[in-house]
Amino acid sequence: MRVTVLGLGSMGSALAGALLDKGVETTVWNRSAGRAAPLVARGAREAATPLEAVEAADVVIACVLDYDAVRGVLEPVTGSLEGRHLVNLTSGSPEQAREMDAWARSHGIGYLDGAIMTTPPGVGSQDMMFLYSGSEEVFQARREVLSVLGDPLHLGEDPGVASLYDAALLGLMWATMTGWLHGTAVVGADKVEATAYTPIALRWLGAVAHFITTYAAQVDEGRYPGDDATVDVQIAAIEHLIHAAHERGVDNSLPELLRSTMLRARAAGHGSDSYGSIIEVLRRPAGN
Amino acid sequence: MRVTVLGLGSMGSALAGALLDKGVETTVWNRSAGRAAPLVARGAREAATPLEAVEAADVVIACVLDYDAVRGVLEPVTGSLEGRHLVNLTSGSPEQAREMDAWARSHGIGYLDGAIMTTPPGVGSQDMMFLYSGSEEVFQARREVLSVLGDPLHLGEDPGVASLYDAALLGLMWATMTGWLHGTAVVGADKVEATAYTPIALRWLGAVAHFITTYAAQVDEGRYPGDDATVDVQIAAIEHLIHAAHERGVDNSLPELLRSTMLRARAAGHGSDSYGSIIEVLRRPAGN
Ligand SMILES: NC(=O)c1ccc[n+]([C@@H]2O[C@H](COP(=O)([O-])OP(=O)(O)OC[C@H]3O[C@@H](n4cnc5c(N)ncnc54)[C@H](OP(=O)(O)O)[C@@H]3O)[C@@H](O)[C@H]2O)c1
Ligand SMILES: NC(=O)c1ccc[n+]([C@@H]2O[C@H](COP(=O)([O-])OP(=O)(O)OC[C@H]3O[C@@H](n4cnc5c(N)ncnc54)[C@H](OP(=O)(O)O)[C@@H]3O)[C@@H](O)[C@H]2O)c1
Repeated sequence: MRVTVLGLGSMGSALAGALLDKGVETTVWNRSAGRAAPLVARGAREAATPLEAVEAADVVIACVLDYDAVRGVLEPVTGSLEGRHLVNLTSGSPEQAREMDAWARSHGIGYLDGAIMTTPPGVGSQDMMFLYSGSEEVFQARREVLSVLGDPLHLGEDPGVASLYDAALLGLMWATMTGWLHGTAVVGADKVEATAYTPIALRWLGAVAHFITTYAAQVDEGRYPGDDATVDVQIAAIEHLIHAAHERGVDNSLPELLRSTMLRARAAGHGSDSYGSIIEVLRRPAGN
Repeated sequence: MRVTVLGLGSMGSALAGALLDKGVETTVWNRSAGRAAPLVARGAREAATPLEAVEAADVVIACVLDYDAVRGVLEPVTGSLEGRHLVNLTSGSPEQAREMDAWARSHGIGYLDGAIMTTPPGVGSQDMMFLYSGSEEVFQARREVLSVLGDPLHLGEDPGVASLYDAALLGLMWATMTGWLHGTAVVGADKVEATAYTPIALRWLGAVAHFITTYAAQVDEGRYPGDDATVDVQIAAIEHLIHAAHERGVDNSLPELLRSTMLRARAAGHGSDSYGSIIEVLRRPAGN
């Protein structure tokens, strides 16, 4: 199987590098000159144009800045993509993924949309998730080569789902990292080092993962028994954090937002329900 | 060693139950009648008054609603606490813990302040952290019996530290759970079940834990090399989440706050730094 990687930014270069490490016949192309050289030194073939790059491959992997860039590169070579498989690992919205899928289908191109849940140094590790959606047939046909990049997970035929998960998962990351940094600032004000606090925070995150598993089942059932800890109990407890942060001159925007979200849940009748019930208020914009 | 548990709410009852399970000689007391019976059936001795309860023990564990309740119970029996060890597992602020420690010291009472990082069903498991601060001597002397309740960690001689960690860790929990629920609402709008999304979210949280470990070292060094992903890149990416959530009628307060925090970091010159640099803006209230 011959693979082409279009786009040799930090991520595209990592993808091509992982393929080369596993001995996959790899062609590379980048808009600006100079980025292919290190990959050519590792055995890649450099294509002079997108057309040449596409024609050299059974599977074309695109990883450029955004969807506009993907279309700019691929539309001029639509004809030569016909009958080949296109795997788009560029970040974008679910809507963009669906549009691109429709375009690919209408030209006889087998299409998979993907999201890379790691940074370039993580590429090639089976610990790292690569999320795919769109054609199950293309996924099954290309699963082996996709496994070279990371652990490939197919989320469904709707091509927008990988991007949707990507956005949701990044949201979880920012919330978690900001919550951790806030706590680190609070304990740091009392001279606790981040590297002292963090192992305990990460161990605690393991316990939080168990709470989340419990609440996931509750969300699907639409019932939130507060038998472990209720929204009312959390509202009482968050006062301690807000007070402690305030005393230490630490920004309280995040805990205050969390408290107001909890108060909205209580006002909606979820005071004695579990924290899982918070989803009921998140499902509609504040003020509605 | 003889232990007394003061307060038989859901947590105090779980603490006493774990001690009884390990054959520890346990005396219990609760303000209202009727809560001791199930523990007496498991071998506990019920004390009629706090005085009788304190006099029966080498180690007194207090777990009532709040610090006012602790003082209300203990101040009348101060004299009989002298020479014994008091372990306060009631939730409160670092300031309250420091005050209680000063009071205990002035009366010759060995004092440990603690925070329970689990719910009652988790009590007795070595996976669960019990955080302690205050007298290292009392901790070492009582470590074995404290191990019956969970995994005991001593955080330092400053008695306020356990409460401070507690507040910080709960903040991490709320942020993480709210970020997870927000993503669950976003994917749920496209008919993805919470129980389908969550295993992937939890696996991703494992990757996020690695980013956090990297950033913890950066925080202590005060240098935030953005070689994995920069604040600027995150600002671009969060637009996808805000757009996707908006399109689906999901509340955007949390992502909008996260974005504005990132924008503050960029304005402070951290655009090409890692996400760890966000702590620099959290260390002072917004608007300052
Ligand atoms: N880096 C990560 O950690 C990471 C993680 C997950 C997903 N991603 C996604 O992967 C994609 C690439 O990211 P990256 O980190 O490799 O970015 P990068 O290092 O900034 O590279 C951007 C790439 O896109 C190309 N490009 C930009 N505009 C173009 C256009 N109009 N036509 C053709 N090529 C164009 C650039 O070519 P030139 O060299 O000619 O400018 C370069 O190859 C993005 O969608 C990103 O969101 C990245
Ligand atoms: N439950 C958890 O998941 C959890 C986790 C970590 C920490 N904690 C902390 O553990 C402590 C106890 O929580 P809990 O879950 O056991 O609460 P709970 O079930 O509501 O029980 C409260 C206990 O406090 C007693 N109490 C209240 N006011 C009192 C007063 N003025 N004088 C004497 N006793 C008084 C109650 O006695 P009566 O029976 O007479 O009302 C009862 O024994 C709290 O500080 C809580 O934050 C709980």
